[in-house]
Amino acid sequence: MKPKISIITLGVSDLAASVHFYRDGLGLPAPDYEDGATIAFFELEGTWLALYPREKLVEEADVDFSDSGTPMFTLAHNVGSPAVVDATLDEASRAGATIVQPAGETFWGGYSGYFSDPDGYLWEVAHNPFTDLT
Amino acid sequence: MKPKISIITLGVSDLAASVHFYRDGLGLPAPDYEDGATIAFFELEGTWLALYPREKLVEEADVDFSDSGTPMFTLAHNVGSPAVVDATLDEASRAGATIVQPAGETFWGGYSGYFSDPDGYLWEVAHNPFTDLT
Repeated sequence: MKPKISIITLGVSDLAASVHFYRDGLGLPAPDYEDGATIAFFELEGTWLALYPREKLVEEADVDFSDSGTPMFTLAHNVGSPAVVDATLDEASRAGATIVQPAGETFWGGYSGYFSDPDGYLWEVAHNPFTDLT
Repeated sequence: MKPKISIITLGVSDLAASVHFYRDGLGLPAPDYEDGATIAFFELEGTWLALYPREKLVEEADVDFSDSGTPMFTLAHNVGSPAVVDATLDEASRAGATIVQPAGETFWGGYSGYFSDPDGYLWEVAHNPFTDLT
């Protein structure tokens, strides 16, 4: 796969408070964020940072984190088409990854699946037809 | 601070096995890694990925993760001088961050400190005089 992390998504307990910290405190740009939104995207150089409510991230990645204090994050690798999502998940599987969630249509109109690395770190392999982060 | 994550460092339980997965399995480039090294750097586009033994990462960040199964990672924000490390940690503190480790000289010849965000996610603010990742 292309050597790139497209997005780092941190699961947060209070999205508004975390946006306040990163945007207003540290000055990171979140141009499209509006109060009440369910996710915040920060446009960083190279790799985007996303903040997403922890329970939604757990639900979306279909993983079980029973300890609510556990740090929860995902690394996203975006590719140019659904077929490349499938091929990349196959590549990861051959490399020994666990396929946590097989590829499929997402609620946001994209196509993605999840694998975990030898330590359980989650990677989402995604095709986003609206925003090119490849 | 400049909107950039310089390095994502994942704490791993078996460095050689993880290097095998990412380098040999997924094909990510780790040109300077040699067998027996204590850390692996992958040169990705935009943000580097590092793999580091979990116990060393815990020791270096000076945090207590009693549950050895807890995912453990840090986000690094590199800056151009020790003075900017100090200023950035001050900025984070004013924004409400907890200073987990005050800035100081590091064992690898740099200067860095750590803060944690509202959910406890760790950021290292670092000056590396040998490699410019700013």
